[in-house]
Amino acid sequence: MRNADFPSVEFETRLARAQAAMVTENLDALFFTSEAEIRYFSGFRTLFWQSPTRPWFLIVPQSGKPIAIIPEIGAALMAGTWVDDVRTWRSPHATDDGISLLIQALQGKHKIGMMMGRESSLRMPLTDYQRLRVGLEDSQFSDTSGLVRTLRMVKSPAEIQKIRTICDIAGNSFGNAAQLFHQGQTLREAFRAFKIDLLAQGADDVPYLVGGAGQGGYGDIISPPSDEPIRDGDILMLDTGATLDGYFCDFDRNFAFGHAGDEAKYGYDTLYRATEAALRTARPGIPCRDLYRVMADVIAQDGSDVGRFGHGLGLQLTEAPSLISFDETVLQADMVITLEPSMAVGPGKIMVHEENIVIREDGAELLSPRAAPQLPIL
Amino acid sequence: MRNADFPSVEFETRLARAQAAMVTENLDALFFTSEAEIRYFSGFRTLFWQSPTRPWFLIVPQSGKPIAIIPEIGAALMAGTWVDDVRTWRSPHATDDGISLLIQALQGKHKIGMMMGRESSLRMPLTDYQRLRVGLEDSQFSDTSGLVRTLRMVKSPAEIQKIRTICDIAGNSFGNAAQLFHQGQTLREAFRAFKIDLLAQGADDVPYLVGGAGQGGYGDIISPPSDEPIRDGDILMLDTGATLDGYFCDFDRNFAFGHAGDEAKYGYDTLYRATEAALRTARPGIPCRDLYRVMADVIAQDGSDVGRFGHGLGLQLTEAPSLISFDETVLQADMVITLEPSMAVGPGKIMVHEENIVIREDGAELLSPRAAPQLPIL
Repeated sequence: MRNADFPSVEFETRLARAQAAMVTENLDALFFTSEAEIRYFSGFRTLFWQSPTRPWFLIVPQSGKPIAIIPEIGAALMAGTWVDDVRTWRSPHATDDGISLLIQALQGKHKIGMMMGRESSLRMPLTDYQRLRVGLEDSQFSDTSGLVRTLRMVKSPAEIQKIRTICDIAGNSFGNAAQLFHQGQTLREAFRAFKIDLLAQGADDVPYLVGGAGQGGYGDIISPPSDEPIRDGDILMLDTGATLDGYFCDFDRNFAFGHAGDEAKYGYDTLYRATEAALRTARPGIPCRDLYRVMADVIAQDGSDVGRFGHGLGLQLTEAPSLISFDETVLQADMVITLEPSMAVGPGKIMVHEENIVIREDGAELLSPRAAPQLPIL
Repeated sequence: MRNADFPSVEFETRLARAQAAMVTENLDALFFTSEAEIRYFSGFRTLFWQSPTRPWFLIVPQSGKPIAIIPEIGAALMAGTWVDDVRTWRSPHATDDGISLLIQALQGKHKIGMMMGRESSLRMPLTDYQRLRVGLEDSQFSDTSGLVRTLRMVKSPAEIQKIRTICDIAGNSFGNAAQLFHQGQTLREAFRAFKIDLLAQGADDVPYLVGGAGQGGYGDIISPPSDEPIRDGDILMLDTGATLDGYFCDFDRNFAFGHAGDEAKYGYDTLYRATEAALRTARPGIPCRDLYRVMADVIAQDGSDVGRFGHGLGLQLTEAPSLISFDETVLQADMVITLEPSMAVGPGKIMVHEENIVIREDGAELLSPRAAPQLPIL
């Protein structure tokens, strides 16, 4: 395989696990339109998904290898994966953007699973989806997002190694904070310096870098950087999802400039302790809601349910499961998750803290280098 | 507005144009789930879309300003845009991820337009979309992708300025090719050096960088970089979509190493001449299919229809229209498009060439610095 982030056995294992579940659930085929699922089962990786012009399809039959039904422009790249059956058309097409090929491939499949549930999208035009359903009127379509979630949550050793490596890379860049960030620098400049360092350290891409800075805390954790300069007393937070071979890290770090106020120190300490509690608790058999609760109890911020304190990580920046009050997913060995407690530290001010771990038989193993126990002051 | 890539008048104009079209088409509301449309009408820009966990919604009523229905985690960022009516919920939610809020906001709207056509996706779970349709059973949903395409294709002066600036930045980096690329360097290293230079020149992000290298041409134009070293006689092509304030450039450059064979020189010259012909032809009133044809005639590669030779550009790497045989969109002033002819130069070898232009009353104005007339040799 020319274009392989993994040896064939990785994909054979994924397929075997999927097909075993398909037999149990009596599904004749799985039908995918989305980047993560198509990459998971085929190994097809390209930034060309940035273009919304063309739809891409993958079918996983109950037996046999996946079938790719894709625009001709992707044929050479798909031919380099482990997929043998690659059917193409010239896309964009005036009247038939792959729909006839899809109908032909799925004809006679009575029960077809597709991603319809939590965290999923339909990456094809709704009008074409409706044509597909009309063309396959004898087939039943059902939601298979639970099945796929179950497969994808547990990572292979090779996947864990990729996530570990990109965590190391991001850890190295965070370790360079004193060289990269300084008072007077705008947030835009700080983000740029950090991205350049991530690439220089070996990251392939930095699809996600958000953060904030403000006196004693920050008000927002999903914003692009402003042109405001970093000032004495600011807390700077950067949260990065950098990638290696298409696998993400996702963790953040906080830095104070000049000095740190008591509230910021208290916030940092509380979140650090919440994360420590989660690190001690996380192991196979623990439900995600309990791991969430362990962190929420440390924060004990008016005792209320304050959000999501972590999530799965891998092919996507965020994946199932969620560390949240209602997620009853039970942790298993080789799940990779983030621990991401957050709390208010003043009016309109919050702080966040995040680490990446893999669940092992005997507990949590850190993939990100553990943050400093005290808020670092630059 | 704290978080503004544009002054309010930009969004007022977009809204006024949309609402005028909605009156004509008798639409009571537009309903959006996708990043590009939500950003177009609200100014809400974040890399947080990388996380598939939460859905985001925007409603454009026939009169009055847009209504954002979004997860609480985005409230602070959305409050910094020109949108006043921001309705939030704690997402992810166990049972109701914004659907009740959506139904409440759309209740009584009889005709609702949403993106269902070419190049669109449904960025919310299908099961939730079905719940929404059941909850609004008295409403008619129709495809409004044509209306939105018509609006978005014509750029404002402020949008054109952002695209021009990011084209200049990428042009500067391509101008550094002799310093950035060398024989013996792996493609992965070459891509990394180029990305770092783009960021150093002022790009915010490089969401798209693909390309290839090979003796006398390349076999694939959407691949991530390999670990193969660049060799004497290779043609290297990099195609980049870098961004500034969320606006893309999208053009490529070719470089030969050591020497260039006759076929590569002929391919380069042919594509250069095809682009020249398109630059002379492009002006208001010309249908996209005719601009496609002008390039296809120069290439005259067995006279057949060989694909898409360009596309719109702006908020997304590729947008409508398409320079393709069946796109009858008529060019208008202030459309920003790419000219992107491609051709075979040998068995399994192709070459591509791309420029970015804005259509002016008197013809094409280049936004990318024009490629060299002869294949550059490094």
